[in-house]
Amino acid sequence: MKEIYIAGCGLAKFGKREESLEEIMCEAAEAAIKEANCDSFDAVYVGAMNPEDFNEESDISSVITDHLGLTPIPATRIETASSTGASTFDEAIYAIASGYFKRILVIAGEKMTAVSTPRATEILAEVIEKHERSLGATMPALAAIITRRYIYDYKMTREALSMVAIKNHHNGILNPYAHFQKEITREIVEGSKIVADPLRLYDCSPISDGAAAIVLSNETGYAKVIGLGHGTDYMAFHQRENLLSFRSTVSAAEKAYKMAGITPKDIDFAEVHDAFTPFEIIGTEDLGFFEKGKGWLAVLNGETDIKGALPINPSGGLKARGHPVGASGLAQIVEAAWQLGKRAGKRQLEKAEIGLTQSIGGLATNNLVTILQACLPAGRR
Amino acid sequence: MKEIYIAGCGLAKFGKREESLEEIMCEAAEAAIKEANCDSFDAVYVGAMNPEDFNEESDISSVITDHLGLTPIPATRIETASSTGASTFDEAIYAIASGYFKRILVIAGEKMTAVSTPRATEILAEVIEKHERSLGATMPALAAIITRRYIYDYKMTREALSMVAIKNHHNGILNPYAHFQKEITREIVEGSKIVADPLRLYDCSPISDGAAAIVLSNETGYAKVIGLGHGTDYMAFHQRENLLSFRSTVSAAEKAYKMAGITPKDIDFAEVHDAFTPFEIIGTEDLGFFEKGKGWLAVLNGETDIKGALPINPSGGLKARGHPVGASGLAQIVEAAWQLGKRAGKRQLEKAEIGLTQSIGGLATNNLVTILQACLPAGRR
Repeated sequence: MKEIYIAGCGLAKFGKREESLEEIMCEAAEAAIKEANCDSFDAVYVGAMNPEDFNEESDISSVITDHLGLTPIPATRIETASSTGASTFDEAIYAIASGYFKRILVIAGEKMTAVSTPRATEILAEVIEKHERSLGATMPALAAIITRRYIYDYKMTREALSMVAIKNHHNGILNPYAHFQKEITREIVEGSKIVADPLRLYDCSPISDGAAAIVLSNETGYAKVIGLGHGTDYMAFHQRENLLSFRSTVSAAEKAYKMAGITPKDIDFAEVHDAFTPFEIIGTEDLGFFEKGKGWLAVLNGETDIKGALPINPSGGLKARGHPVGASGLAQIVEAAWQLGKRAGKRQLEKAEIGLTQSIGGLATNNLVTILQACLPAGRR
Repeated sequence: MKEIYIAGCGLAKFGKREESLEEIMCEAAEAAIKEANCDSFDAVYVGAMNPEDFNEESDISSVITDHLGLTPIPATRIETASSTGASTFDEAIYAIASGYFKRILVIAGEKMTAVSTPRATEILAEVIEKHERSLGATMPALAAIITRRYIYDYKMTREALSMVAIKNHHNGILNPYAHFQKEITREIVEGSKIVADPLRLYDCSPISDGAAAIVLSNETGYAKVIGLGHGTDYMAFHQRENLLSFRSTVSAAEKAYKMAGITPKDIDFAEVHDAFTPFEIIGTEDLGFFEKGKGWLAVLNGETDIKGALPINPSGGLKARGHPVGASGLAQIVEAAWQLGKRAGKRQLEKAEIGLTQSIGGLATNNLVTILQACLPAGRR
């Protein structure tokens, strides 16, 4: 792979924000520009899942590029549902690898609280296959079907799901950008209201506003991209061979590992798409970290804790950092880069040489895997 | 530039279509697959400007890739307002140039008639700068301001605008995929209702459904990409230095000519974004074909006719082929490729070695220029 570097990263705090989508995105962009200490770019890549419905905004890449004072450079918007942040990153990587661009500013964000929660749920459901949608399917309802089947096949306990939420909330406390900054307990998780049985409120990531940004360079940076993979799957559940493994993740991971020339054993930590607690478990299995059906045991054993053998979601994940849909995929990559660059503050992992991120688009119809490696010797800033 | 080829093109007929967006897009894709005589791809790039608002569809790249039976390959949606078709093409080019992809299927489409015309107008207005929009600006209203200024500065006659529409409708008759297939006269144009003074109905492109598709290959094809350029401009009119020249086009053209190593004199024909008749005239000036303020004279002199010295919009343009917003930029490239490959049927130009396309995103905030060259000796199929 051509050497492409992350020269700077930025986040706008996730949560309920008063500012507009463009203000949040520009906040993240300015932070990344500051960290990279450079302000000239060959192009801007903008990711947002659905500003059309959430914010009545169209042509968002022009809006952001104008707000940043970067016209007349090219501005392009990328979208792959809830993996938008990751696909925006990928397209910018390809653009630099093509040789036509040297430095690109990548920004991804979403402002979901501009609409009511019922309306947000409706907008999110637009990624569901038409016939399933016409029968009233929602994202949590479909995730619940998967969860029930996982419990049936692999005898997973309720405790394992709770522990995913508890772990990620614990990590979120260490992350100043996280939506939630509070410790939770099994009582809180298991006493929270049912969203779609067996999924409870604390099994679901929140509706958030937020943005992430990365400066990519063909010259220098503190982390480099060593693997990229992208896969898709049938929209409709009834067409899928297996509900408990996402073909889109498996296909993306296979490509990313191959490009990087490594195996799952080489990964020191990962950011895994935990829009619903069972998805983190399925993700860690699809990525080859644990045997199929054993991921939930790894959670219970503490292996995925921030001090465990393979920390998963040190940032707090979508569950606690929050899930502004278009931003999440890029925020995962920001976390991985910060960990590799020893810039992760209180949640800094001891061993962080190679990190992986996995992002889910829609109901696992459009997933991406990214593998990054540290550029500096461990411990050096 | 790395050699990247157009191996096959397809269009779904433009106009008011009964089929769904995905059906129209798949129709175009299947036509391109047939022309290219290949059906395996490394990725699918999907362009649509606003299926969220027009069709309540999200994650459209997954939908299309699933409908085509192409999962689990990567699927990515690109958007830059009304230049979406062109930017989708560009991203696919960069992906192939990166070396990670060999063959990509590019599809762009829009189904605008799923909503009422007033609602479509409202959706299209979402690309306008927020403050101008809050004051009631619409796309034709802003285009009318530009037109008035052009008339004031350059003394353009009403006849010149009419002749753009008449020329493009004439060409559209020769294009079986065009929305309109009828000859028009000055009386029809100048007797049509005023949309935004001085622009009349026949100065405006229609609301259309339609799709275009291209198979890109790193190996073989009948046309090759020799120049790409992409530029942006301030959203707000009051920030622009000049209303009569689009900085986004000028910047894009400069890059495309430089990459191709040619000048405007080398271009044999062009597809120019004529969403409003004056935009074709301004486009031909910004592209360096005619002196600033003289483009309207070239139209009156017949220079841009299909049998003129520099045919503009042999396809019928947005005016007569129709303007399904996300599709138009790619449909322009399809026309250029077909002309270069001597596949343009009744509207085949005699001299077609190098062709250019120019696409406008929003109110000229996000524009692209593409330059293609024929691969086969003239006359050979």
